[in-house]
Amino acid sequence: MKEYMFYNPVRYLFGSGVIGKLGDHAAALGKKALLVTTPGTMARFGSRIGDILTAADVEYQVFTDVQPNPLASGVRAGANLAEQTGCDLIVGLGGGSAMDTAKGIAFLTGKEGGVFDYITGKRTGTTALPIICITTTAGTGSEGNATAVFTNDETLDKKGLVNPLIYPKVSFIDSDFMATLPKDLIAGPGCDALFHAFESYLSKDRHPISEMYSLEAMRLSIENLPKVYHNPADTEAWDKVILANTLAGIAIGCAGTTVPHALGQPVSGLLNVAHSDSLVCLYPAFMKFTAQAAPERFAVLARLLGCDTAGKTAGEAAEMSIGAMTEFLKGIDAYKKLSQFGVTEAHIDRLAEGATTMMKVVLNKNPIVPTLEQVKELYRESL
Amino acid sequence: MKEYMFYNPVRYLFGSGVIGKLGDHAAALGKKALLVTTPGTMARFGSRIGDILTAADVEYQVFTDVQPNPLASGVRAGANLAEQTGCDLIVGLGGGSAMDTAKGIAFLTGKEGGVFDYITGKRTGTTALPIICITTTAGTGSEGNATAVFTNDETLDKKGLVNPLIYPKVSFIDSDFMATLPKDLIAGPGCDALFHAFESYLSKDRHPISEMYSLEAMRLSIENLPKVYHNPADTEAWDKVILANTLAGIAIGCAGTTVPHALGQPVSGLLNVAHSDSLVCLYPAFMKFTAQAAPERFAVLARLLGCDTAGKTAGEAAEMSIGAMTEFLKGIDAYKKLSQFGVTEAHIDRLAEGATTMMKVVLNKNPIVPTLEQVKELYRESL
Repeated sequence: MKEYMFYNPVRYLFGSGVIGKLGDHAAALGKKALLVTTPGTMARFGSRIGDILTAADVEYQVFTDVQPNPLASGVRAGANLAEQTGCDLIVGLGGGSAMDTAKGIAFLTGKEGGVFDYITGKRTGTTALPIICITTTAGTGSEGNATAVFTNDETLDKKGLVNPLIYPKVSFIDSDFMATLPKDLIAGPGCDALFHAFESYLSKDRHPISEMYSLEAMRLSIENLPKVYHNPADTEAWDKVILANTLAGIAIGCAGTTVPHALGQPVSGLLNVAHSDSLVCLYPAFMKFTAQAAPERFAVLARLLGCDTAGKTAGEAAEMSIGAMTEFLKGIDAYKKLSQFGVTEAHIDRLAEGATTMMKVVLNKNPIVPTLEQVKELYRESL
Repeated sequence: MKEYMFYNPVRYLFGSGVIGKLGDHAAALGKKALLVTTPGTMARFGSRIGDILTAADVEYQVFTDVQPNPLASGVRAGANLAEQTGCDLIVGLGGGSAMDTAKGIAFLTGKEGGVFDYITGKRTGTTALPIICITTTAGTGSEGNATAVFTNDETLDKKGLVNPLIYPKVSFIDSDFMATLPKDLIAGPGCDALFHAFESYLSKDRHPISEMYSLEAMRLSIENLPKVYHNPADTEAWDKVILANTLAGIAIGCAGTTVPHALGQPVSGLLNVAHSDSLVCLYPAFMKFTAQAAPERFAVLARLLGCDTAGKTAGEAAEMSIGAMTEFLKGIDAYKKLSQFGVTEAHIDRLAEGATTMMKVVLNKNPIVPTLEQVKELYRESL
């Protein structure tokens, strides 16, 4: 077998109320935390988190300038604040944007330049401040890996900092945070997690351990995401949805994602479309394009989505997965088209150029790699 | 949901030939390694490992005084040698005995007293030398967790040092080491790995992530152990057997083991019976005793063992697993009785006392906890 490596040194704390343990872990890692979050999340949970830190004798400074699709300039601003206020610990509280920003700040604090200098290899770093992630949505899985995605202020390209230094030391996955999520922050991030699971399962970089994580995340997402969408009070289902999210985050840390993420990042970067919205729009076209290049894997997805594939060939079962996914998305009001977000034919050349250059590494992980013309066609079908 | 924690910071390197990467990892962790192994393993693989270390400018000192069911005195002797020769890295090369001894030495080097002082809490430690594990059998999974089991020289009790400090920094799981294993070092350790998987799956301390590891290890073991036993040249099956072994090692690191390990340890400690031999003898009695206390889980085992459980209740399917496991063990020449190893009725009181005192914590993880009298009966049935 091809050699492979599995390494994921994060300490994961799961369960309703587990955030109560934040104080002990924070105190073990630092004396002053930069709490990185959005104004909305700060309003909802800031005082609770602040009280826990204070009770543990951990000082904190709040940084709420976190944007969806966070800009590199925001990361630099957060690192400057951490430097000026003497923070020695970074706590990311929120969804992917907050956690990714926290990871970027932890990496950049005490270093020269901007985060894209390190993403592109112009500069290198050997240290980072310790990171605690507290996920308040079940979507990006950022609490489970050493990746953080940012948008370049000048080019609007979106790209990931991938570095073992930004593995969270501790991640809190507490379903109590999910109970009050608005519907659109259940379905969208939930689809993102499912897509992480499926794309890592397809990826050319998968290995037997990442596959185990991917499959379990697919199974848990498909069974439980509709339950929490229609009944956000279903705590048992939430426990499974947030677990799926973290498992999928670990899986993409191993195997990465494929075509939908490669094509979605330029959409988010250029038009500031929410990450999960870009993905749901692209999924049907991606699935049609890829299914026959990995029919056994699409057949597994079909069965998990509830298709009766008895007596079908893998290719036939794979085709069934496409319609089943559309139905799944419609069932949680997540079936959308790019035109709803202002994407037009006029954007396609620019988007396709971004997908095939900046996102080339991700694109190449797909079982069949689309040409520039095929990428344009995938966008066109998704309008 | 009950709170749970998952933390496993080991860097795992899998694959045929991956041992070639040992030099880089060893050089990153230390300047002089204590190579902990048995004389037999040293003869087979020592020169290859030594050459790799030397090429990476890592000096090494060899310690081959590793016994099956390693004694605490041997751990102290190894730690003394590490201290005297200035080793700053411990490399365990072999099966569970060598890797556990390496973990114990890494922990004890530079500390006063014996390893049981720390197991019993009489002394405490806050540091350990870095550990590299190289597994040459597929059985104990010691490369996957922070546990090391030793026998007390005076009492012959067997007990585990469990401490996050003894997580290996890097574990090499290279199927090339397996190709020349004698048959009894395929079946016995292979059963140990399967039992780790199943007992952790049953354990009261299981959680959703440990269950995922347990189930995948059960599936891989049952499918592939007979293949490698009957055809040790089947490298594809070996890749799966050694993965199952490590996954099961991670699972027991989370959830522990149950009755068979609780009852087996005193047999190994008192009569120096190989760990896996003690387990295979005890399994049928354990399964009969426990099946109806966790019928759904035994039913899953039955299906993995190939039983057609269609139309059966969970209880009926659970009963089917008992005979199916016996057939599985017979199929790899691993069905044995304790009397073959010199255990007699006269030993039972002493064994049962050991199982219900020193191994009480393990015993309590079983879905139904046997009384002292029931423990004696389990031994008696296994004679």
